[in-house]
Amino acid sequence: MTGPRWLRWPAALQEAGLAFGADYNPEQWPRETWPEDVRAMREAGVNIVTLGVFSWAQLQPTAGTWSFGWLDEVMDLLHDNGIAVDLATATASPPPWLSRLHPEILPVTARGETLWHGGRQHWRPTSPVFRGYALRLVEAMATRYGGHPALAAWHVSNELGCHNVYDYSDDAAAAFRTWLRARYGTVEQLNEAWGTAFWSQRYSDWEEIIPPRLAASFPNPTQQLDFKRFSSDALKDYFRAEREVLRAITPDIPVTTNFMVTGDINGMDYADWAGEVDFLANDHYVTQGFPELLFCANLTGNLAQGRPWFLMEHSTSAVNWQPINVSKRDGELARDSLSHVAHGADAVCFFQWRAARAGAEKYHSAMVPHAGTDSALFRSVADLGRALRALAPVASTRRKPASVAILVDWPSWWACEQDSHPTERLRYKQEALDWYIALQQLGVRADVVPSSAALDGYAVVVAPILHVVPPALATRLTDYVTAGGHLVTTYFSGIVDESDHIILGGYPGALRDLLGIRIEEFSPLRDGESADLDNGCTATLWTDRIDLTDPGVEVFARYTSGEHSGRPAITHRPVAGGSASYVSARLGPHGLSLFLQRFLAVADVHSELPASARGRVELAIREGDQGEFWFLINLTDDPAGVEGIEGTVLYPLSGTEPGVLAPRGVAVVRRG
Amino acid sequence: MTGPRWLRWPAALQEAGLAFGADYNPEQWPRETWPEDVRAMREAGVNIVTLGVFSWAQLQPTAGTWSFGWLDEVMDLLHDNGIAVDLATATASPPPWLSRLHPEILPVTARGETLWHGGRQHWRPTSPVFRGYALRLVEAMATRYGGHPALAAWHVSNELGCHNVYDYSDDAAAAFRTWLRARYGTVEQLNEAWGTAFWSQRYSDWEEIIPPRLAASFPNPTQQLDFKRFSSDALKDYFRAEREVLRAITPDIPVTTNFMVTGDINGMDYADWAGEVDFLANDHYVTQGFPELLFCANLTGNLAQGRPWFLMEHSTSAVNWQPINVSKRDGELARDSLSHVAHGADAVCFFQWRAARAGAEKYHSAMVPHAGTDSALFRSVADLGRALRALAPVASTRRKPASVAILVDWPSWWACEQDSHPTERLRYKQEALDWYIALQQLGVRADVVPSSAALDGYAVVVAPILHVVPPALATRLTDYVTAGGHLVTTYFSGIVDESDHIILGGYPGALRDLLGIRIEEFSPLRDGESADLDNGCTATLWTDRIDLTDPGVEVFARYTSGEHSGRPAITHRPVAGGSASYVSARLGPHGLSLFLQRFLAVADVHSELPASARGRVELAIREGDQGEFWFLINLTDDPAGVEGIEGTVLYPLSGTEPGVLAPRGVAVVRRG
Amino acid sequence: MTGPRWLRWPAALQEAGLAFGADYNPEQWPRETWPEDVRAMREAGVNIVTLGVFSWAQLQPTAGTWSFGWLDEVMDLLHDNGIAVDLATATASPPPWLSRLHPEILPVTARGETLWHGGRQHWRPTSPVFRGYALRLVEAMATRYGGHPALAAWHVSNELGCHNVYDYSDDAAAAFRTWLRARYGTVEQLNEAWGTAFWSQRYSDWEEIIPPRLAASFPNPTQQLDFKRFSSDALKDYFRAEREVLRAITPDIPVTTNFMVTGDINGMDYADWAGEVDFLANDHYVTQGFPELLFCANLTGNLAQGRPWFLMEHSTSAVNWQPINVSKRDGELARDSLSHVAHGADAVCFFQWRAARAGAEKYHSAMVPHAGTDSALFRSVADLGRALRALAPVASTRRKPASVAILVDWPSWWACEQDSHPTERLRYKQEALDWYIALQQLGVRADVVPSSAALDGYAVVVAPILHVVPPALATRLTDYVTAGGHLVTTYFSGIVDESDHIILGGYPGALRDLLGIRIEEFSPLRDGESADLDNGCTATLWTDRIDLTDPGVEVFARYTSGEHSGRPAITHRPVAGGSASYVSARLGPHGLSLFLQRFLAVADVHSELPASARGRVELAIREGDQGEFWFLINLTDDPAGVEGIEGTVLYPLSGTEPGVLAPRGVAVVRRG
Repeated sequence: MTGPRWLRWPAALQEAGLAFGADYNPEQWPRETWPEDVRAMREAGVNIVTLGVFSWAQLQPTAGTWSFGWLDEVMDLLHDNGIAVDLATATASPPPWLSRLHPEILPVTARGETLWHGGRQHWRPTSPVFRGYALRLVEAMATRYGGHPALAAWHVSNELGCHNVYDYSDDAAAAFRTWLRARYGTVEQLNEAWGTAFWSQRYSDWEEIIPPRLAASFPNPTQQLDFKRFSSDALKDYFRAEREVLRAITPDIPVTTNFMVTGDINGMDYADWAGEVDFLANDHYVTQGFPELLFCANLTGNLAQGRPWFLMEHSTSAVNWQPINVSKRDGELARDSLSHVAHGADAVCFFQWRAARAGAEKYHSAMVPHAGTDSALFRSVADLGRALRALAPVASTRRKPASVAILVDWPSWWACEQDSHPTERLRYKQEALDWYIALQQLGVRADVVPSSAALDGYAVVVAPILHVVPPALATRLTDYVTAGGHLVTTYFSGIVDESDHIILGGYPGALRDLLGIRIEEFSPLRDGESADLDNGCTATLWTDRIDLTDPGVEVFARYTSGEHSGRPAITHRPVAGGSASYVSARLGPHGLSLFLQRFLAVADVHSELPASARGRVELAIREGDQGEFWFLINLTDDPAGVEGIEGTVLYPLSGTEPGVLAPRGVAVVRRG
Repeated sequence: MTGPRWLRWPAALQEAGLAFGADYNPEQWPRETWPEDVRAMREAGVNIVTLGVFSWAQLQPTAGTWSFGWLDEVMDLLHDNGIAVDLATATASPPPWLSRLHPEILPVTARGETLWHGGRQHWRPTSPVFRGYALRLVEAMATRYGGHPALAAWHVSNELGCHNVYDYSDDAAAAFRTWLRARYGTVEQLNEAWGTAFWSQRYSDWEEIIPPRLAASFPNPTQQLDFKRFSSDALKDYFRAEREVLRAITPDIPVTTNFMVTGDINGMDYADWAGEVDFLANDHYVTQGFPELLFCANLTGNLAQGRPWFLMEHSTSAVNWQPINVSKRDGELARDSLSHVAHGADAVCFFQWRAARAGAEKYHSAMVPHAGTDSALFRSVADLGRALRALAPVASTRRKPASVAILVDWPSWWACEQDSHPTERLRYKQEALDWYIALQQLGVRADVVPSSAALDGYAVVVAPILHVVPPALATRLTDYVTAGGHLVTTYFSGIVDESDHIILGGYPGALRDLLGIRIEEFSPLRDGESADLDNGCTATLWTDRIDLTDPGVEVFARYTSGEHSGRPAITHRPVAGGSASYVSARLGPHGLSLFLQRFLAVADVHSELPASARGRVELAIREGDQGEFWFLINLTDDPAGVEGIEGTVLYPLSGTEPGVLAPRGVAVVRRG
Repeated sequence: MTGPRWLRWPAALQEAGLAFGADYNPEQWPRETWPEDVRAMREAGVNIVTLGVFSWAQLQPTAGTWSFGWLDEVMDLLHDNGIAVDLATATASPPPWLSRLHPEILPVTARGETLWHGGRQHWRPTSPVFRGYALRLVEAMATRYGGHPALAAWHVSNELGCHNVYDYSDDAAAAFRTWLRARYGTVEQLNEAWGTAFWSQRYSDWEEIIPPRLAASFPNPTQQLDFKRFSSDALKDYFRAEREVLRAITPDIPVTTNFMVTGDINGMDYADWAGEVDFLANDHYVTQGFPELLFCANLTGNLAQGRPWFLMEHSTSAVNWQPINVSKRDGELARDSLSHVAHGADAVCFFQWRAARAGAEKYHSAMVPHAGTDSALFRSVADLGRALRALAPVASTRRKPASVAILVDWPSWWACEQDSHPTERLRYKQEALDWYIALQQLGVRADVVPSSAALDGYAVVVAPILHVVPPALATRLTDYVTAGGHLVTTYFSGIVDESDHIILGGYPGALRDLLGIRIEEFSPLRDGESADLDNGCTATLWTDRIDLTDPGVEVFARYTSGEHSGRPAITHRPVAGGSASYVSARLGPHGLSLFLQRFLAVADVHSELPASARGRVELAIREGDQGEFWFLINLTDDPAGVEGIEGTVLYPLSGTEPGVLAPRGVAVVRRG
């Protein structure tokens, strides 16, 4: 095992090439089903499963009794069939006996409502009582299975924070105070940071502080922001507590938990969490179209610092928790899975192995649908298994860095969408995704990276709505530009410091000098309102009235309608060999691509794809000792030509017309 | 009195022909108004009123005092004027003193909110304290008025479950546990039925079980379904408790309560309740257009097994509880009332006699409006009274069964609209209503019957979204088809058993063999999305990818667009003399009528109406010793011809052009 | 000081001409900022500021400690610079220590949710504990600053009722009972007024009565209406309690509080409150377009009985609490400010002086924006200061009464929008505003007056949706008409008495004879539904089926479509020299202006504006010893001609083309 602890990869998988599997919940099925499960797993090429995610109530049927026999049996059966186990600590959802015995573990909403048992994850991250019971279970699991040969990795809890990240209970209040003491030291420092002179909110004692519970009007915004930081940290702390129990007993088994870099989930600052896991694992579900999947896979790969990561959950077809849950169309199962591999996943796993016949997720697709293994879906799954075996050479290679970085900054995401702002319509993730799609349309690879990432390797850095800019970040960005980098940022960036205090003197305070502009007031647009730009694109959501403060600033585009008609909409300030640009409006992917065409030319960044494939094909590259692996992913529902990419085709297995991707198809080519 | 107890009809009404009246609330008016009320009732032809529905606080002003004098006086006055009384037990809404003394009777929402007094029906169906007070009142009422000559029937409480069917209090929790013990016997059986191996929900003790209160995520679906069953049963049990007090004291007085077969109300499984009342009574209010009224009247008539029933409440004009409450247009008062008679009602009653001047229902229309008896509305009411006297021969006749049955199944209704399903847009009642309207458009009478009804008399059975199909029901349907019946069912039918467990092996599990098809995945459509069929109709909401598993299956229609283009959309499997058809999409009334034209021909079912009247006129037939009574109801706002229906015209009283119904008009013809 | 106490104007301002300033919150800024603040205030022409609104936690850092030093310093600094102080009692938002010590001061919603600290105004108006702490602070403030030379006026609390007007706590319940005892004397009287015979709601004891908390169905409407009356009174009582402490200590300092005559806020019956303040102060924010500002300024001026009033808060540009907060466009800052002056304001103040850098209102504009004093906004502010100095002659003049009055009646506003009504779409304020705009379109000045105002000076009285008409009001209106006045009222007027009981016999019961019409049922329209009138306008929301009961009634317009086609839509009954008209539908501003053209001609009311300016310019007139001051306000975004208005132009300072108002421009002309 090499590398720092958080990059440890399960030893059991190091020889497996790419891992393939699912959550496996044998306790939901009669024992007779198990041999058939294992047989079908082998047929599908499954080599790893996650066990025990929701098994607490099976393993500890009452406070005083334990029942491991069934799990012993399953572990043995899997091992006998060459299937490794990512073993959950089983603490994700406590049994009813625990919440009956200790209702004080139940989360409480901002409105004061108790979240009862009946669903899942009904526990306070900060409950000492819950933690006591949970860690006893973790210890029991580690002690019993730490030496089992099937054990490949520990899976702490499950999707930490999916439902319980924000808890407003008294336990949360006490823990929040402790966290605040550590952050601020004195109440006076907290009063300063929270601006409590406003609205007579000055605290005289730590004990007066509570979470931002339902109030008569907007709760203090820094209190809200700190509560988000605290809530992320509280779950991280809980993760660590489980991890330390595991490490003490099984120091050689890597520990992970499945992140949720997906959709609009932002409660956990995964840039901050990434260093805590031995290898990074992610759950992704399609909610906002295919480009969003690519965006998230890309970000996950960069959170893993380019090293292999584990796609712990995605779906073979429909899910059950959206308002309308559509099935995947032909090709989407493979395309979605391989897109994650393209961005660095060395494991492709699903929730779940066998579709449940009962419970809230029974309409969630699985590797084995309700129809059974004699089904188109299972055949597609088995095809995917074969594909992954063919792609074994990809295993352990790294994502090849791009020339362009898109920054994702959790504090900005949290802060910019808070209440009592210029507009409540602003969506951080959507703006970032728009930039990703705009680059995709130009055929230019980008790395979606946390804002803490090293920037020096990038020719271009895109910082959408980088709202929170503490001095150190402002300095990093300035240094980047003065060292020759090309930075572009957008509306509502550089506005506040880490305490959500406005940086005074004209917006964007933290980046004003770097950009060479100054804005006195914000100009959000009403629903349905828009403003045209002279480069052919249209602004919605937001505009700014820009004054140029540096004579060297070039105007890349001007408004031609609306309040600011005739004034700059997009600016560009050359600085040494680099530059700093500002886009003052929401332009959408097409509008951004118009800007980027010009901006990338300045930065000398070009597409690696043939012209005909740009905007129709996503390119992702992994690189290793054996050269580069080019993943060519058809973004469209039509065939897409990718002429001129030479190399060894690893996928698709059976020949298609050379140089043409099937609708929603993927090709993997080994080059050089 | 003949027939089983639940078909007993008030003796006082047996000579009255059709009953006509309203809720009468004299306690809301000064005593001087009473003689004027009775005079106007006689003018209008009123022969029965419901008394005392909301009189508890008048009858028992404090916990320790009673005040019956005013009611004595009203009972005498009505009797002296030949008006019978359907006497409420007055328990519908407890007085403020009771909830102050015993706040533990107040219902609690799933979010933990108390429902306070101030409105009505603020009591827990399972509260032993409430039941104690209520039954003491019932006993007092029965003792005092059991022998009064005006007393025609007992009216238990009022609209049981209108607001309090779902109570999540601790009383409800305790009663739920008791109910579950009776259903399952052991916790282990419950765990099996609820699928608690999922999400670590296994119960180790009955005391751990609670109603599906607000949870961090979707509560267990079988818990939800059982809570619906329990809630219906809890109110039914409460009804029985009042009824038994009444029967012990007045064994010869029939007991009823007013059902709410109307709109989207589905909390009470009236198919299960129907056997509990001595005669069936219903409240109906127009919420979803006139066809919905006909659908509900039809269903009510069939819940009453074709015997006369009591329309206990409807409105003379506008109601007050919808977002926008429109008045009835010319003709609608009579048409709506007579439509209920057409489907078997022998009583036409309104809420209420005199429009209130105060309180939450003061804008609800009544027989006497705020304008008084010198008003168009009162004149229409008196006209209706005359019409009902002219229709006296109809009294005691039965609905004539149709050749087509549409099944309504409460467990399917409950289960198919639960959360975490393929789509949350599905509406059970709407689909069933669409079929009713489609048949109406073809001029074909149908019986809307509970799924437990005997099917052997029907040439065609329509089972829309028959989602929950336990083995016994599957057997009944198969037997029906093999005996020569023609069954058609739809998307999302036959999917689960009574525990909401998927029937495995391919959908629709319970009906797969009967239909000769197999579906591997659901294909709900997004909002605005549709798919065309080659028979000219368009699918929304849902489609299926159908595989034919029986070589005899005919394809009645194929998709011509969308994911399943070219594949079957509607299938038909001839079986012996019968057949089994499957409609895989929501087609709406017009689309369904296209299918039905072909399907009814196969089943040799034809319209009894002249061709020109089909789709414009609803036909309903009652039959008795004196022959058949044909009710011809104009569904349109234009005149409608109904040539060729010969017989004696009982209504309209004064001649209109022969063979032409006025806009929204009704004709009643005695034939043969 | 002259006039009744409630018309007292701060002595310090009597020589200042028009006052100009803002809320000033120096405690939110480092002490170094203060001298710069005062310097810039002088630059801008500020002569008054409001201090201490949210300073409780600064002034009383803990229950037992006080800290006045900083405020002493600020008071002195301001005084030294010639800036007067409107000193808040600082009780608006209690410090965290208070709600921690006494959580029983926290308000509770109808759903039972506690409103915690974290925002502002988290106190129960009826809490004796809160009042105790608050009055001790008031006493401390009065004692310390009562003699300070900067002190011009007392500012009680702040925006009383902005967030806490409806509190459903046990304190509120107790106070509600006390209030009801005073109103009704006996429980029996209350039962009569509330119509508790309905739904078995009869109370047997005061202790049974609670606020209209969440109930299973609609709470009693009179309970709801009385709870609104009580809630307004409870805050008024709280205001008085603070005022009495102040008066006892500083009898010569006038006391006010800032009303919120703005938007849809209607919780406080300001017609009833107006007599309580020594001078009237208002906060207005643009939420519904510019005409709404004029409507509110006009009403405020009339609540002040035509005497000068104090615009305590408005915004220099965007606010922060709307979903989308747009900035003011060029000209809007001056136009908005001067529109208030036009309607009688002698003070133009803003929230706030310096835009906050932290807290929930940091994106609320201010006199000094985040960009600092070197900004377009601050320059506009200073321009406005100069304008106000030029307008000094306007100070102390009175609004010149108009010929037309529009009545605003808080009980009608409250009652007509309650639940369980003919339509929930009805909006009282919108209908009243429509009439104001219709008159504006005709160039006719109107006074928006409380319904209690003397009517005899008006040629025309418009009473939109005058829903609650007790006998005394009916008499006043009848007397007005018989004395020669011209009254017009609308749909849903005259329906109920002060207990929300229907006035029987046909609608509109209270005005039926005066109008000479009778309506038997309401005919609200569905969304999207409309009916045409033969005068060219279109009805939405509501129509009526009108019968004429007086032979003298003229039909001004008839319906030409819909259910009532051919029947009267607008009626006019000449009475002696006056008349009474009825508009049975929502017609919108354009439709109303069509009616008004004819109606005003009957009443001999004419525009004072040149024809070309009508509908494009609002005219408001102040009058005093020096003659009349005509304010001409351009309602449009284009230049607007106002030829022929002769006099001395006081504003704009620098010449524009004579007789032409700039887009959104204002001119002030002294005449005679």
